[in-house]
Amino acid sequence: MEKFKELSEEAWQLYLLHVSIDCVVFGFHDFTLKVLLLKGLHDDSWALPGGYIGNEEDIDDSAIRTLKERTGAENIYLEQFRAFGSPNRSEHYFSEFPDTLWHKQRFVTIGYYALVDYTLVLPKPDSISSSCEWKDIENLPSLIMDHKYIIDQALTTLRMQLSHKPIGYSLLPDKFTMPELQKLYEIILGKKLNRGNFYRKMMGYDILDKLDESRKSGGAHKSPNLYRFNKEKYENALSNGLKESW
Amino acid sequence: MEKFKELSEEAWQLYLLHVSIDCVVFGFHDFTLKVLLLKGLHDDSWALPGGYIGNEEDIDDSAIRTLKERTGAENIYLEQFRAFGSPNRSEHYFSEFPDTLWHKQRFVTIGYYALVDYTLVLPKPDSISSSCEWKDIENLPSLIMDHKYIIDQALTTLRMQLSHKPIGYSLLPDKFTMPELQKLYEIILGKKLNRGNFYRKMMGYDILDKLDESRKSGGAHKSPNLYRFNKEKYENALSNGLKESW
Repeated sequence: MEKFKELSEEAWQLYLLHVSIDCVVFGFHDFTLKVLLLKGLHDDSWALPGGYIGNEEDIDDSAIRTLKERTGAENIYLEQFRAFGSPNRSEHYFSEFPDTLWHKQRFVTIGYYALVDYTLVLPKPDSISSSCEWKDIENLPSLIMDHKYIIDQALTTLRMQLSHKPIGYSLLPDKFTMPELQKLYEIILGKKLNRGNFYRKMMGYDILDKLDESRKSGGAHKSPNLYRFNKEKYENALSNGLKESW
Repeated sequence: MEKFKELSEEAWQLYLLHVSIDCVVFGFHDFTLKVLLLKGLHDDSWALPGGYIGNEEDIDDSAIRTLKERTGAENIYLEQFRAFGSPNRSEHYFSEFPDTLWHKQRFVTIGYYALVDYTLVLPKPDSISSSCEWKDIENLPSLIMDHKYIIDQALTTLRMQLSHKPIGYSLLPDKFTMPELQKLYEIILGKKLNRGNFYRKMMGYDILDKLDESRKSGGAHKSPNLYRFNKEKYENALSNGLKESW
């Protein structure tokens, strides 16, 4: 509790009242979609990495700063997806604190999602957290306030965008197999996809290069082929939409 | 200027500091996409309908309230699309006012877009505007602050969503022709579409009922067929995405 009080005094000077940001950081590893979470100092609940906006700071810069602090990574694929502004979203969580605590004020929080290469991130807790870890999106721990809802809305946004623009470049390693890409799509869409249809549709987008390499599986099975996103075609699809869209 | 000062005193009591909302209200009429704008009391610049958030009010409720006040319409199709938060977005506009003016404070504004039936709206100016009018999206007047950018971003959002979910139910009259629907898509996409391809793609979505009626054109041309959205299939596509999407 002392830590919050200490931060509160400083916050009243440095930050814009009533506006905060929260980041849903997605990473993909070992066929699972993960999200970066922070564990409280004194309880077992988890929270999204987030922060406040400097008095003279752009909201996007505030999100970039927060992510850099938590992940060590720069040049992260980051997009704002929506604001969350029900009047009492944080009040309950700080009920035992004095009303003058900065964190207990009403905050409309602006949600950003980030897609990062899991292998390039070094999770770092902030000053009010005991740890910072990747958690499986399909097996999330208990989250504070409306943070579970914020994650759900970020996933809904990703799902909607799958029909319009490519996804995966920021989440997958440089070379990947078709089953890995399909699994990523299945987790975001929340449903199984037919392997043949997925292959045809994905190749139809014309954003993948099939490599003359396969992953050594070591087993009796045929080694799966490796693919790589064609950066130029991928960027074009990001800007102008996928071939199949309008 | 007096009007602003008068409103300012009240606003400091009633509203949440640093957060505002702005609404991009789209209407479609006579083959043009229009947006609802307010004209300042003392100048020739135009602004989006917007407002502030009551101390205990949900941000979405604030948008609904603002729209009802400006258009008289309820049950409007309304979606938040993004927040705009560069640090000096409104400062210049109020440079001649005292620093204590509510409106001169820094506001992060949350953008909503609304799709309305043009014929059901009665535009009403607010207390700091001389008029409220529909303006053609392809021929906008000069706009204050970052409001032109906000409109552009709303259009970009609509464009992205066209590949995933249907659009038009809230914008078109109950019965419409295929050329009217195509024109709406063309304006949002910012490009011409092939008539045959548009027809096939749109019918492939399976959300339209072709009616046994045509619009009396009065001229020598064949009267164009009328269509209507199938409400049930349309709602299903809104929730689950269009057939063609993932």
